[in-house]
Amino acid sequence: MIENSLLCRMLGIRFPIFQGGMAWLGTAELVSAVSEAGGLGIIGSGNAPSDWLKKQITLTRELTSRPFGVNIMLMSPFASDNLKLVTEEKIGIVTFGGGNPGPFIPELKQNGVIVIPVVSSVALARRLERGGADAVIAEGTESGGHVGDTCTMALLPQVVDAVKIPVIAAGGIADGRGLVAALALGAQGIQMGTRFICSEECIAHPDFKRHIVEAHDRATIVTGKSVGHPARCLENKFTREFSKKEKEGCCAEELDELGRGRLREGVIEGNTENGSLMAGQIAGFIRDVLPVKDIIHNTITQAELVIRNFSCLQEVGPGGS
Amino acid sequence: MIENSLLCRMLGIRFPIFQGGMAWLGTAELVSAVSEAGGLGIIGSGNAPSDWLKKQITLTRELTSRPFGVNIMLMSPFASDNLKLVTEEKIGIVTFGGGNPGPFIPELKQNGVIVIPVVSSVALARRLERGGADAVIAEGTESGGHVGDTCTMALLPQVVDAVKIPVIAAGGIADGRGLVAALALGAQGIQMGTRFICSEECIAHPDFKRHIVEAHDRATIVTGKSVGHPARCLENKFTREFSKKEKEGCCAEELDELGRGRLREGVIEGNTENGSLMAGQIAGFIRDVLPVKDIIHNTITQAELVIRNFSCLQEVGPGGS
Repeated sequence: MIENSLLCRMLGIRFPIFQGGMAWLGTAELVSAVSEAGGLGIIGSGNAPSDWLKKQITLTRELTSRPFGVNIMLMSPFASDNLKLVTEEKIGIVTFGGGNPGPFIPELKQNGVIVIPVVSSVALARRLERGGADAVIAEGTESGGHVGDTCTMALLPQVVDAVKIPVIAAGGIADGRGLVAALALGAQGIQMGTRFICSEECIAHPDFKRHIVEAHDRATIVTGKSVGHPARCLENKFTREFSKKEKEGCCAEELDELGRGRLREGVIEGNTENGSLMAGQIAGFIRDVLPVKDIIHNTITQAELVIRNFSCLQEVGPGGS
Repeated sequence: MIENSLLCRMLGIRFPIFQGGMAWLGTAELVSAVSEAGGLGIIGSGNAPSDWLKKQITLTRELTSRPFGVNIMLMSPFASDNLKLVTEEKIGIVTFGGGNPGPFIPELKQNGVIVIPVVSSVALARRLERGGADAVIAEGTESGGHVGDTCTMALLPQVVDAVKIPVIAAGGIADGRGLVAALALGAQGIQMGTRFICSEECIAHPDFKRHIVEAHDRATIVTGKSVGHPARCLENKFTREFSKKEKEGCCAEELDELGRGRLREGVIEGNTENGSLMAGQIAGFIRDVLPVKDIIHNTITQAELVIRNFSCLQEVGPGGS
C-alpha cells in the first residue's frame, strides 16, 4: 500500500525509501543493492574526485538497470567537477548536502535532472523550492554526519507546511514504524543512512558495523559546532579529543588538520577509536547486519502492519462517543 | 478511534493527551481546562512551595471533577514537601521531571498513586520500570525546558522496545500528525507543552504567547549544558548573555545567580528580552492561541483524518505487486 506512490512514480522506484548518499559508503555495491530492492540507491561522492565518482557510476550501471542517484557534497573541492560529470553521465537524480545548492539548480534542471537537496531549515526549503528543486529531504539533527539543529519531529511538519514539493524525511528512521511516523507527519518518503551502513552490501568495516550494533541510545555526539560544521558521530577517542580542542578554542585550521582523513580511517579501515564514525542517534536501535533486500522488505512489511493496526482501531470505532 | 485506549482507561481520561506540567504555567486554569476537555491536566509545581501547590490543587478541584496530575520537579528545594502534600491530598497521578525519582516511587505506590516519570534515556526508563513506575514519558531534546540529548524520533522507539509499561511521547508534538507519528512509533499517548502555552486558558503573558506564535523553526536554543542542566528556550537577550557567560567558563554559582527569577520574569511578566522563555522547537509550527477545548479537538480530529487516509491507502491495495 506504500509502494508506487506519487513520489515513487516521479523517480521510477517501487518503495519511497532513499539510501543516504554517505561519503565512502555510498558505493556501487550498496547503491545497486538498494535500487535492485526497489528503493533509491544514492552514490555518495563526498570529497572524492571525479574519476572515483565516474568509476562508481559505471560499476552501479553494471550492477543494476534501475534508477539511482548521486549525492553532491557542496563543501567538497570537487563539487563543480562532480556536477559536470553528473550531467555528462546523464544521471537522472541528484541530492545535495553540506550547503545551499541554489546556484547549481538551473543548469541541472535544463539537463532534465531531478534535484533533491537536503535541508535542515524551513527557510532553505522555501528558497530551494523557489529555485526549482523537485523535492527536499528534511533532515533532523538526529542524523549521522553533517547536521542542523532541529529534530525531525519538529522540522518535518514545518517543512511540509512551508513547501508544495514532496518532502522526504531523514534522521532517526530505521524501521517501518519510523516510515509510518514520517508519512503521518506529511513526508512522502524516507531516507535512511545508519540502517544501510549495517547491511551486508555496505563496504563499511565490520568493526564499524559492530560498533553501531552495540551502540546505545546516547552513543553519539555532535562535534564541530565551533567551526560551523557540526557533525554527528559515535563517541570515541577521536571525538573526545576533537571536543577538547574545541573547548580550548582551537582555530578552524587546527581542527581541520585534526579531522583530516579520519572518516576513511574510521568507516573503511575500522579504526574505531581514532577514526570518525559518522552515525545517527538511531544507531542505538539497530541490532543486526542484514542484506539490503531484507532491510527494505522488513521496513515495508512493518509499516504496512502499523497501518493495518490503525485501520483496526478505526473499524472498532469510537469507544465512548 | 483514539479515545478510550488502554492508557486512557488506566488514567480515567478520554483522550491520551497530557499537558506538560510546566513550572509557573501548569496552574489550575490550564489544568482544569485540559482535564475538562478529556485530556490529562498536570499541575507544574516547579520550584514552588507546598502552600502554592496546595492552593492549585484546591482550585483545580473546584473547577473539574475529572482526573488530573501533579508534576514534581526533583531539583526543587520543595520536592519532598510537595511529594508529602501529594500523598496527603490523595492525588491520583504524579509525573516527575528533572532527575531520577526512583527513591520516591515505593511510598507513592503504597499510597495507590500512578507514577509516570519523564525520561530522556533508555537506561533511566528501564531502571524506573524495575522500580515500579506505571508508565514513562519519553521526552526528546526538541522539548521546551529541561532536556536530554536524544531526539523524539530516535528515543521513542528505543524506549518502547526497552520497557513493557506504556510510553507517552513528548517533544516536537503540537498537532494530530504528531499524535499519529507518536502512536506509529509505539507510544500510547502524547504530552504537549508549548502547544498548551498558546491556549486561552494558560496564564502565560500574552507577549510570551505572541513570541511563540511568531517563532520560526530555528528560534530556540539550549543553554546550561556547561553546568549539567541544559534547558531549551526561545533565543533572546537573556539566552545570548547566558551562552556568552558559559563560553567564558563562568562557574555554576554565577550562572545560577544570572538565571534566578528569569522564568517567572519571562513567562508571567512578559519580559521577552530579559526573561527565560522556555519553549520547544515545535514553537515554529504554532500559529494561534486557541481555547484548550479546540486544541484537543483539533488534535484528535486531525489524527483521525491521518489514520483514515492511511486506511484509504490500504483499501486501494498494493499498486504494482
